[in-house]
Amino acid sequence: MIIDCHGHYTTAPKALEEWRNRQIAGINDPATMPKLSDLRISDDELRASIEQNQLRVMRERGSDLTIFSPRASFMAHHIGDFNVSAAWSAICNELIYRISRLFPDDFIGAAMLPQSPGVDLKSCIPELKKCLEEYGFVAINLNPDPSGAHWKEPPLTDRHWYPIYEKMVEYDVPAMIHVSTSCNPCFHTTGAHYLNADTTAFMQCVTGDLFKDFPTLKFVIPHGGGAVPYHWGRFRGLAQELKKPVLQEHLLGNIFFDTCVYHQPGIDLLTRVIPVDNILFASEMIGAVRGIDPTTGHHYDDTRRYVEAAAIEPEERRKIYESNARRVYPRLDAALKAKGR
Amino acid sequence: MIIDCHGHYTTAPKALEEWRNRQIAGINDPATMPKLSDLRISDDELRASIEQNQLRVMRERGSDLTIFSPRASFMAHHIGDFNVSAAWSAICNELIYRISRLFPDDFIGAAMLPQSPGVDLKSCIPELKKCLEEYGFVAINLNPDPSGAHWKEPPLTDRHWYPIYEKMVEYDVPAMIHVSTSCNPCFHTTGAHYLNADTTAFMQCVTGDLFKDFPTLKFVIPHGGGAVPYHWGRFRGLAQELKKPVLQEHLLGNIFFDTCVYHQPGIDLLTRVIPVDNILFASEMIGAVRGIDPTTGHHYDDTRRYVEAAAIEPEERRKIYESNARRVYPRLDAALKAKGR
Repeated sequence: MIIDCHGHYTTAPKALEEWRNRQIAGINDPATMPKLSDLRISDDELRASIEQNQLRVMRERGSDLTIFSPRASFMAHHIGDFNVSAAWSAICNELIYRISRLFPDDFIGAAMLPQSPGVDLKSCIPELKKCLEEYGFVAINLNPDPSGAHWKEPPLTDRHWYPIYEKMVEYDVPAMIHVSTSCNPCFHTTGAHYLNADTTAFMQCVTGDLFKDFPTLKFVIPHGGGAVPYHWGRFRGLAQELKKPVLQEHLLGNIFFDTCVYHQPGIDLLTRVIPVDNILFASEMIGAVRGIDPTTGHHYDDTRRYVEAAAIEPEERRKIYESNARRVYPRLDAALKAKGR
Repeated sequence: MIIDCHGHYTTAPKALEEWRNRQIAGINDPATMPKLSDLRISDDELRASIEQNQLRVMRERGSDLTIFSPRASFMAHHIGDFNVSAAWSAICNELIYRISRLFPDDFIGAAMLPQSPGVDLKSCIPELKKCLEEYGFVAINLNPDPSGAHWKEPPLTDRHWYPIYEKMVEYDVPAMIHVSTSCNPCFHTTGAHYLNADTTAFMQCVTGDLFKDFPTLKFVIPHGGGAVPYHWGRFRGLAQELKKPVLQEHLLGNIFFDTCVYHQPGIDLLTRVIPVDNILFASEMIGAVRGIDPTTGHHYDDTRRYVEAAAIEPEERRKIYESNARRVYPRLDAALKAKGR
C-alpha cells in the first residue's frame, strides 16, 4: 500500500474561489459578506474535480491513499481577522470531509486551522476538535507564519504554540508545518517561502527543547525538509555548537520529512542522509510543479519514480510508502485497520 | 592552485567589536560616538589574528588564496542609519585591505557595502570605488536584506539595485549575495537566514529577467546555493511554469554556487546536479560551523576533503578550485597574472 501524506485540494470548483473573493471583499464592506450557506458545490462537482485530477493521477502512478487537506496557498491566514479565517477554514475543511466520504478508500483528511496573526491559538481548538472528532481527520496543517512571509509570530518552540501542541498530543495527531501564500514580494510562494519555512521550522527545533516538553509531538516537514538534508552536516555542526544532543536523539524521534523533492538526485540525497524511518512518501500533486520534466519525460511531481529508483532495500521502501505513515499518523492506522487494510 | 572564494574576517582583535559597540551606543548618545581614528589595531595584532587562524587552516588544508571580506554576521546593516553603516564599512574594509597587504599572496579583498534599509544604493558607490580602485579588491558582498531578516527591500531584480549592478559591470566584479545577522527571532542567523537568503535570491532571479539587462553581471550564491541544488527539479519546473528559458540558459551564465556544504552527500549532490563550470571552491572558515564532525574526525568546514572525494574528473576539480574563480573574478585573475601566478 502506498500512502501519500501530502495532498491539497488544489482543484476545487471555481465556486470556492468566488466565495473567498466575496469574503475578502466583505472585510471592507460587511453588508456583502457571504454566509457559509452561500457556497453551493454539489457532490457531482466534487467528484468530478477529484476523479479527473488527483484520483486519476493516483491511479496512474499507483498510490492508494492521500492524506488530503485544503489548498495550502489559499489558506492565506494573513487576510482579515480570526472570524474571516474561521469561516474560511470551516468551508475548506468541510469540503475535505465531503471528499473523504465520497472517496473513503482514497482520501482521508488533514485540517487547516483558522489561524490569524497575533491571535491566541486556543481560538483554533474548536475547529481542530470538529475535524478530528466529527470529520475523522488524522492530522493538521500548522502554519508557522500566518503573517504571509513577514514572520511575525514567535518560533515554534515558544509557548504561544502550546495550546495546539497539547491538543495534538491528546489526539495523537501530527502537524505538517506548512506555510501559505507569500504576500512579501521578496519571496516567491512555492519557490522560496515554502522551502525557507521548512528550513526555518527545523532550525527553530534545533535551537529549542520543544520535544522535552512534548515527547510524543510529531512534526512532518514537507518539501523534503527544505534545505535541511542537503545541509545535514551544517545542522549537525550547529547542534554541536549549541551543545544539543546529536540530531538523531534531539529531533528525529519527532520530526519527519516528506519526499516532495522533484528530481532523482534530491531523493537520492534524502534517502542517503536521513534515516529511512523519518521519511514519508508524498508528492504534493497536483501542486506547485505540474509540468513534465523534459529530461525524463515524466511529471516532476511523480515522486514515486524517484523512490523506486533510489538505492534502498525493498523493506526500506515499504517503510517510506506505508509503515512510517501508519506510525506517524496513528489515527490513520486505526482507520485503515478498522477497514481491514 | 586552490582559491577559496568565501572567507570572512571572523577573528579580528577584540578592539574591533569594542569600537562597534561604542558606535552602536553612540547612535542614541551622539556625544560618545567614536571616531574612525579611535580604532587602533597594530599590524602585529592583525598578523597574529590571521596567522593563528585562517592562514594556519589554509596551510593545513592546502588552499592557497582566500577572497576575504568583513565578517558577514557583523555587517548588521539594520543598525543605525547610512552614516553608521558608512563608518563601519570603512573600518571593516580597511582592515581587510591591511590584511591583503600583510599577506599579499594569501588574501585578496571583497568589499562590504555601507547599505542601510531604504537608502538609495548610489550611496554605496564611493566605498565600492575606494575598495576596487585603491584597495585592489576583486568582488563585493551584496546584502539582499539589509533589514536583518525582515525582508523589506525589493527583490534583487528591481531597479532599486541597478546602481550597484552598473558599477559591478563597469568594474567587472561579481557580488556574493550574502545576508548578515538576523534580528528576527524566527530565523537563526547561520542555520536559517543564510540558507533562506540563498534560496530566495536564486528564486528572485528565476522569476525576473535581470540578466537580460545586465548580460555580464555575476552573482555568487554562497552556502552551496541554499536549498537550490537539492530542489533543482522544483526550480527547473517552476521556471518552466513561468515560461522562462531552461535554467542553464536563463541563469547559469550569471549565477555560481560555492562549496560551503559541510558533509560529503551535500557536495556529491552539488557536483552531480550543477554544471561544474558554475561551482566555486569555498569553505567559509573560520565561520559558522567550527567543530569536528564525529562521524569523520575532520572539521565540518574542511570542504576540500569533500571536493577531493567527489566523483568528478581531475580537470573538473581544477575548475572548481581555480579556473572558475579566475573567470568569475577577472580582477583576481589579473592580480594573479601580474605576479606570474
